Amino acid sequence: MARTLNSKRSAVAATGGQTNGIENGAIKPTFARGVVIENVRPEIDCGRFPIKRTIGERVEVTADIFADGHDVLYAVLRHRPTSRPDWEEVPMQPLENDRWQAEFRVDAEGRHLYTLQAWTDRFLSWSRDIVKKLQAAQDLSVDILVGVNLIETTAQRASRKDRGFLATRAEEIKRLAVRDMPGAVKMALNPELQALMIQTADRGRATTYSRELAVVVDREKARFSAWYEMFPRSCSSQPGQHGTLKDCTSRLEYVAGMGFDVVYLPPIHPIGRTNRKGKNNAEKAAPDDVGSPWAIGAREGGHKAIDPRLGTLEDFKRLVSRASQLGLEVALDLAYQNAPDHPYVKEHKEWFRMRPDGTVQYAENPPKKYQDIFPLDFETDQGQALWEELKSVVLYWIAQGVRIFRVDNPHTKPFDFWEWLLTDVKGRHPDVLFLAEAFTRPKLMYELAKLGFTESYTYFAWRNAKQEITEYFKELTQTEVREYFRPNLWPNTPDILTDFLQQGGRPAFMLRLVLAATLGANYGIYGPAFELCENRAVAPGSEEYLDSEKYQIRAWNLDSPNSLAKLIAQVNRIRRENPALHGDWSLRFHPADNDQIIVYSKMTDDLLNIMVTVVNLDPNRTQSAWVDLPLDVFHLDPRQPYQMHDLLTDTRYVWRGPRNWVELSPLRMPAHVFCLRRRVRSENGVDYFV
Amino acid sequence: MARTLNSKRSAVAATGGQTNGIENGAIKPTFARGVVIENVRPEIDCGRFPIKRTIGERVEVTADIFADGHDVLYAVLRHRPTSRPDWEEVPMQPLENDRWQAEFRVDAEGRHLYTLQAWTDRFLSWSRDIVKKLQAAQDLSVDILVGVNLIETTAQRASRKDRGFLATRAEEIKRLAVRDMPGAVKMALNPELQALMIQTADRGRATTYSRELAVVVDREKARFSAWYEMFPRSCSSQPGQHGTLKDCTSRLEYVAGMGFDVVYLPPIHPIGRTNRKGKNNAEKAAPDDVGSPWAIGAREGGHKAIDPRLGTLEDFKRLVSRASQLGLEVALDLAYQNAPDHPYVKEHKEWFRMRPDGTVQYAENPPKKYQDIFPLDFETDQGQALWEELKSVVLYWIAQGVRIFRVDNPHTKPFDFWEWLLTDVKGRHPDVLFLAEAFTRPKLMYELAKLGFTESYTYFAWRNAKQEITEYFKELTQTEVREYFRPNLWPNTPDILTDFLQQGGRPAFMLRLVLAATLGANYGIYGPAFELCENRAVAPGSEEYLDSEKYQIRAWNLDSPNSLAKLIAQVNRIRRENPALHGDWSLRFHPADNDQIIVYSKMTDDLLNIMVTVVNLDPNRTQSAWVDLPLDVFHLDPRQPYQMHDLLTDTRYVWRGPRNWVELSPLRMPAHVFCLRRRVRSENGVDYFV
Repeated sequence: MARTLNSKRSAVAATGGQTNGIENGAIKPTFARGVVIENVRPEIDCGRFPIKRTIGERVEVTADIFADGHDVLYAVLRHRPTSRPDWEEVPMQPLENDRWQAEFRVDAEGRHLYTLQAWTDRFLSWSRDIVKKLQAAQDLSVDILVGVNLIETTAQRASRKDRGFLATRAEEIKRLAVRDMPGAVKMALNPELQALMIQTADRGRATTYSRELAVVVDREKARFSAWYEMFPRSCSSQPGQHGTLKDCTSRLEYVAGMGFDVVYLPPIHPIGRTNRKGKNNAEKAAPDDVGSPWAIGAREGGHKAIDPRLGTLEDFKRLVSRASQLGLEVALDLAYQNAPDHPYVKEHKEWFRMRPDGTVQYAENPPKKYQDIFPLDFETDQGQALWEELKSVVLYWIAQGVRIFRVDNPHTKPFDFWEWLLTDVKGRHPDVLFLAEAFTRPKLMYELAKLGFTESYTYFAWRNAKQEITEYFKELTQTEVREYFRPNLWPNTPDILTDFLQQGGRPAFMLRLVLAATLGANYGIYGPAFELCENRAVAPGSEEYLDSEKYQIRAWNLDSPNSLAKLIAQVNRIRRENPALHGDWSLRFHPADNDQIIVYSKMTDDLLNIMVTVVNLDPNRTQSAWVDLPLDVFHLDPRQPYQMHDLLTDTRYVWRGPRNWVELSPLRMPAHVFCLRRRVRSENGVDYFV
Repeated sequence: MARTLNSKRSAVAATGGQTNGIENGAIKPTFARGVVIENVRPEIDCGRFPIKRTIGERVEVTADIFADGHDVLYAVLRHRPTSRPDWEEVPMQPLENDRWQAEFRVDAEGRHLYTLQAWTDRFLSWSRDIVKKLQAAQDLSVDILVGVNLIETTAQRASRKDRGFLATRAEEIKRLAVRDMPGAVKMALNPELQALMIQTADRGRATTYSRELAVVVDREKARFSAWYEMFPRSCSSQPGQHGTLKDCTSRLEYVAGMGFDVVYLPPIHPIGRTNRKGKNNAEKAAPDDVGSPWAIGAREGGHKAIDPRLGTLEDFKRLVSRASQLGLEVALDLAYQNAPDHPYVKEHKEWFRMRPDGTVQYAENPPKKYQDIFPLDFETDQGQALWEELKSVVLYWIAQGVRIFRVDNPHTKPFDFWEWLLTDVKGRHPDVLFLAEAFTRPKLMYELAKLGFTESYTYFAWRNAKQEITEYFKELTQTEVREYFRPNLWPNTPDILTDFLQQGGRPAFMLRLVLAATLGANYGIYGPAFELCENRAVAPGSEEYLDSEKYQIRAWNLDSPNSLAKLIAQVNRIRRENPALHGDWSLRFHPADNDQIIVYSKMTDDLLNIMVTVVNLDPNRTQSAWVDLPLDVFHLDPRQPYQMHDLLTDTRYVWRGPRNWVELSPLRMPAHVFCLRRRVRSENGVDYFV
């Protein structure tokens, strides 16, 4: 929008009402015509936290800006990457009720800053007033000189090149005024002169907004990604055999074939033996039980080591490299906790809390005891070394080519620690992404996102009813939350086999897949359990899988005719090919007169891609509804038909007007994923759509 | 609420997540278990501005408070007058969704501060957990020692007196644990011990909220007052004669008789002669025209002088003194602008902007010129002396006994100036009140209130329809606005004779009076124009009075049978006697099935005084409606009758259930001002109400 001004940061010695104010109860007079800049949006917690964007996205900034008196205001939005000293400036436009607006695009990864500056402009005020006086046929012989003076004063401040231009204009206006006042006024209002006067305006008394607000810019994958979680040790082609990173590498083609672009591995480190849990979380492990990968650390090493049964660092690097060839990124699990056998326990007793009997404090949730896990004591006086060590774990895996981390239970470690770690690492490697696995209270989840987690797990898995889904996703995509919290939607995880999936059979998996993949530009599944519709829980009322891969190796029959692999591939292809599905902010829900039918759309800013998803939320029965679409929002002519092209089944329907009928059978296909196509022409009575 | 702890400010060396954070892009590890304190309410613009209260009012503070992990949180609200170094502390209570709450009462004028502190408490966490473990019959021999250690560590930090108590308890618990573990646990949970452990908690890692928020406490009159504006020069008993301060003093009994408690005088200073305006704002004044009191300054003096035709400083002091005897306070007008004859113009040319022809810049709103007014140039380099001089005007009149100022057009002077002036003056004289006369855009009006104006004029005069009134007063009394903006409601002023009053005759004045006096705990009228129902405008479509007192002396017939003086006295008596009408925050609108009938209530916190006002907004026709009252809010038994006692007419109606009928004739009385009386008993079939 509009022209961009360049200004040296140092060239502007801004003072103003905003930054004066009360100090120790005393206020000093400042003689400034204080322009007020307030209520700036976006701004998270008074600027305490950055907002988030991905490369190429817009930052639209609004603010209340006003001054005393009647002078004309001029306001600019200033922005820059932290790496550059100069601000770019964009002139702001007044909306209504003293609200102003401007926007800029972020074009590079890393941290950027934005703030506002505004001033009352004497020359613009004079220009506005002299027109009114001229129209009222008043004597302007003195007034014109006021303007001439302003130009002359500005000339003294201007660059050598501009100085001459301004001085000449001032002289010409003065001369012309004697014989042709309307001509002199017209000359003063000349656009080139006006633009130069604005550019050279005296900002000595401008108000600069008291805060520089930050925006963290990530690569596009932070906004749009499809994740696949799998256990490498279950990747062997020989049932019962412990899979390796090599097996896992062979499995990548299968994953890429389904159209995923992130493959996430649970911890690959040596697993503790002391107090190891057995199959189905049994208190005592059998001799051949493999233990939980989240019980990290054994004599073979800790967080920087690889479980020898999985392979070597070389194997891991080959895995990363093969993944890359297939368009996949490898995401590692960052689980800051230790098995009793972890080398830290011997080498750094000071990082653990001790019990009065001299033993190490194990994890507890009274009365439950987790004696296979020793939590780190972040409150220890030896914190600095501990924090540095934990950071070095991240940097180590980054050095091995990892750029995405899924962080286990971050809400059980201090907020300060995360802010420090994430800011430091992203300062070095702005392309590294962190997904927060915190299934906890809403404010803690949002706080972790504010502190710097790139993406976050959500309550999606437990939102099944239309009303719940609608409310939750409005909160995530239409409120301030969206500025810092990027949802990543998972219908299942190794810890979460929801009652809905347990009860709903294959249609439940299908509809939850479509919901996750179209409601969320970021989504993921835990497979092969998901595509094979594994729905057996360890006990009634539990969300734990029976024979969970957390505690044992599973052999999956990927060729099962029941597999959803083809549908998943289709859904991921639709996602890739339709840019409307690459973001969440355009999400909009539409009325349907049946509580079991949910309808929503996403579209691109230019309206060239409009995707309408209709899902039957009932996995057991065919449901139908009258659906209402906002034709005005889609810029559709209500008198012309339009085509709804279901990309799941490649079926095309011609719809007319806002209200149309849908019917979905869960057994065939519980959802439509429509691309809305506009009618472009009609030939021989046949309509053509694009 | 609950117990109050005392803590030396110096005793708490609080660090914490809140105040660490990013500095120059680098974050240092802090090893703190950071409790987060966010979203504190009330807090105006990130603590930039204070909230307002009057003596005895509550400050209810809420905040999001949470920590990582599962430890028990403890949080306190801290508050103190700025004059005292020590914080009072009130324990906060958790509401839902990590929101906490506490409150304190302000008991003295002046500026107070409040902030929050919170920490995770190891002993409270231990206490919670050991109960669960005891219930699960676990071996506690090690766990009990953890608690004993915590008590022993705390003892080392405690005062000499408490140290012994704690050490003894630790020893006893340890001894008892050997033979009677449940007894030992019970001893650890002893309330006295628990209270002492909280009081002596280690706050070394507590989070102190990063801002100290301010509350400006005024005397009660800032919240509850009835103003009467009158021109002293129209107070003569001899028609046509220039009234004096003595005449004005004689008129005070009349004003007090109507029940007002503030008498506000337009400027009483010498009036300029150069370019003086004539009657009805004529451009040229006749020789005997008195001029506008707002054109301040002549050879007789400026803002600290009294117009000799009004009298002397002694006369003024006698006026103030007599007013005080009658329960009236005198409010002066503070109009920072100058007639061309003002002594400043000669003595301080540097305080004015000069035109290129060497003349002083007069006030303009192009194409309109106000050549009788020279505005001060607040942008002058000589600002410091100017600001000091303007402050000295306020201090001068304070020295003469004035404690209330009505400030003319504050939105045309810099915001910085007002913040400086108001903070300085109220720092010296916390009992001084300032009413901002800014009829301008909403955000400017709110900004002036934030900057320190005690009360503000409103758009009330132009809100006539039920929907308009309801929306506007919900904004003023039910949103954050109420924290800093105190409305003062005027149905008329010397500048504002609304179309509604011009057209609606006597009933219009009656109903606007009742609305102002019951919607607003602060209200005022410009008289005698108001009570005499003066409704002639200078021209159709104008809000200016014909023969306005701004430009000429008026002789009023106070004995007119048309006068509303008796009704006004009645309304002011009702206000005084009913504490529900002493504030605005309890205002609540109720449904009525007629757009011309508005119904609203105010009540005291204890529900002992409930006032329900019903107004017929149509000055021309009798209107009736079914009215719905929320009996549950009023704690009324829906099966029992209640009495609606109309205090305007002393008529009593017995109502039953939520829905009742009202009918109001504008000619008789366009409003009910009901006191709702509860049924206390029934004797011989007769109900008694109180």
